[in-house]
Amino acid sequence: MDINQYMQTLGQQARQASRALARADTATKNTALTVIAEQIRKNAALLQQENARDLQAGKDKGLDAALLDRLELTDARIESMAEGIEQVAVLADPIGEISDMTYRPSGIQLGQMRVPLGVIGIIYESRPNVTADAAALCLKSGNATILRGGSEAIYSNQAIAKCIHRGLEKAGLPVTAIQVVETTDREAVGQLITMPEYVDVIVPRGGKGLIERISRDARVPVIKHLDGICHVYIDSAADLAMAEEIAFNSKCHRYGVCNAMETLLVDKAVAAEILPRLQKRYATESVELRGCQQTRTILPNITAATDEDWDTEYLAPILSIRVVANIDEAMDHIHLHSSGHTETIVTEDYGRSRRFLAEVDSSSVMVNASTRFADGFEYGLGAEIGISTDKIHARGPVGLTGLTSQKWIVMGNGQVRK
Amino acid sequence: MDINQYMQTLGQQARQASRALARADTATKNTALTVIAEQIRKNAALLQQENARDLQAGKDKGLDAALLDRLELTDARIESMAEGIEQVAVLADPIGEISDMTYRPSGIQLGQMRVPLGVIGIIYESRPNVTADAAALCLKSGNATILRGGSEAIYSNQAIAKCIHRGLEKAGLPVTAIQVVETTDREAVGQLITMPEYVDVIVPRGGKGLIERISRDARVPVIKHLDGICHVYIDSAADLAMAEEIAFNSKCHRYGVCNAMETLLVDKAVAAEILPRLQKRYATESVELRGCQQTRTILPNITAATDEDWDTEYLAPILSIRVVANIDEAMDHIHLHSSGHTETIVTEDYGRSRRFLAEVDSSSVMVNASTRFADGFEYGLGAEIGISTDKIHARGPVGLTGLTSQKWIVMGNGQVRK
Repeated sequence: MDINQYMQTLGQQARQASRALARADTATKNTALTVIAEQIRKNAALLQQENARDLQAGKDKGLDAALLDRLELTDARIESMAEGIEQVAVLADPIGEISDMTYRPSGIQLGQMRVPLGVIGIIYESRPNVTADAAALCLKSGNATILRGGSEAIYSNQAIAKCIHRGLEKAGLPVTAIQVVETTDREAVGQLITMPEYVDVIVPRGGKGLIERISRDARVPVIKHLDGICHVYIDSAADLAMAEEIAFNSKCHRYGVCNAMETLLVDKAVAAEILPRLQKRYATESVELRGCQQTRTILPNITAATDEDWDTEYLAPILSIRVVANIDEAMDHIHLHSSGHTETIVTEDYGRSRRFLAEVDSSSVMVNASTRFADGFEYGLGAEIGISTDKIHARGPVGLTGLTSQKWIVMGNGQVRK
Repeated sequence: MDINQYMQTLGQQARQASRALARADTATKNTALTVIAEQIRKNAALLQQENARDLQAGKDKGLDAALLDRLELTDARIESMAEGIEQVAVLADPIGEISDMTYRPSGIQLGQMRVPLGVIGIIYESRPNVTADAAALCLKSGNATILRGGSEAIYSNQAIAKCIHRGLEKAGLPVTAIQVVETTDREAVGQLITMPEYVDVIVPRGGKGLIERISRDARVPVIKHLDGICHVYIDSAADLAMAEEIAFNSKCHRYGVCNAMETLLVDKAVAAEILPRLQKRYATESVELRGCQQTRTILPNITAATDEDWDTEYLAPILSIRVVANIDEAMDHIHLHSSGHTETIVTEDYGRSRRFLAEVDSSSVMVNASTRFADGFEYGLGAEIGISTDKIHARGPVGLTGLTSQKWIVMGNGQVRK
């Protein structure tokens, strides 16, 4: 198979299908989603049969246990995949929403209408449920999709694609609206990200290496986040009981997630009081602490943090701690080391809460709340396709709206420019 | 001078200045703008003296008359540059605007705050007034700017830069907030568009060749439009007197602008009646007509339109005309040939007006109004830095808001994830 030709064909088909999808009404899209969920439940045995082929090939290739676990489609995962699609069907349809309609002095009536982006390319690694999740969000937001999953999940993804295609057919939508790339050739990714004539935006989901490579080589915009180096700053005016809970929850609620805290900044005025209390709390979860020099004068038994620590996303029960002179030093540290994901200040001081909100340049900035709230479900987006740390287009958790654009609409009754 | 090192230094300085600019309050930014306008008026003689050096060099290099005209800083142009800056000072400050603040079930209060993009690189050709216009918009929207003007205007641009720097100084802002590249080496552009660590977005203003080159090579997002191939579709249910005015105004109000109509689509049901009337109107302005076969059965004396005509932005008194069977054929033509800038339908039919608004995928879609309204001033944006035909981020006329982003803000009172 000529990969170049094959990807061009997928692109052309997607571009063509995107017009039908853009004008599909809400009921049609919801019908498709509901049928896809039904088909996934009905074909659970078939999905598991195909998944078994992937698992066997994975074992033969010597994939590690964690990867094999992520690859497996258990009964519970199949049910949760179907439920996820049904939840997307229930979400409000953003397409066609008209906002800010006003009359201009010329007499034209001007507003903005929400429209799909067009064609979205999704590139992801081994978890096959992403196929269903991402397809559902793109479909509901009126976009055609080309999905490129990991080669380890090729049979599982093709089986899920069949369920998706039955849903599209049943709703009278073109099956080319959602296409799963059928080749494991890596060149397919290179093609997918360099077809601006057919693909409007790329959403990569996976490791930092994959995302960096895609961002570097893509010829179309990429909605991405690279890492989550999130900070909690305990201000001198913090309620220390609250600070303890937020610092504990931001680190320990889950470790392997992008909105977990990696570095704790503590104002020197309260460091001697709060740090020993926190050390006890973290000990209950065996969190390893690494501190700056001042931290270690208070907690002498912990390791020294190196320069590298401030720039590391641990995704593990490890926390770096730094004592700072004031909010300016805290914000300077964040400016230098944050990945622009999420930062929290704990304070009861009005002026400093406002400064932190205004001056910290991250996709989510919080006062007196755990960094773990930076999440599409917690923000009420219903579902998220990812969390963007870019400033252009979508920023922070990206839900249906992040997969849309707005065009200007003008209604007149014969106006011409004088 | 080592260009690479020089551009890196500009980038570092801009990135640093962007923090001061992001937290500058409205009064400070307005003071800077007002003083810049004052300085431009006060130094008119000096500006013209430096401009004369550019003009002389241009003449020596044999630049054509049109280019020399665009380069010249007349009294009127200097006054209009100062007025433009004052108008930006009067615009509402978008930065810090908080929207959609709501409580989530967890108890956190969630909203979005408008923030600057950071550092904007502007690349433009010979008109020196762009230096002042673009700098003013970026300053008001809290962004640091690196401006790279055409080499023909280097002395004029440096003189304008001096006025800008006095304004920044007087307002207590770093002069590195607005930097004009001091070298005419073309390598500076290559550097400017490939420093994602220092520059957040590039706005190119100039010919299609320049913009295509920049888009291809840039490593950061580009806010751009390549061309404006705008369409007017006269539907079978059009008010023909209105259609005549809109088709005439869309073409003839100005020729060399991106929102002028280049192709007229006419429903076959009204073609025989409206086309001869339009031919008479266009004759008064000596507009050359080029038609499809059906058009030429009605207007036999006009030239045949070639395939190339449908994809050409004339920017001249030339118009291509095509007769179509219905709205679907009109929208198919637009889908295939439009540059995604602006399209208008003239109709009194309710259903077709809604279809056209919903289904045509351009940055501005209009009913019963001249395409010439697609403009930042007409849309009430106050001023525009350009018109974007991209779907990501800003779309259509880009004013202050298009130079900003939004971050999520969360206010809590101790919430943690359960």
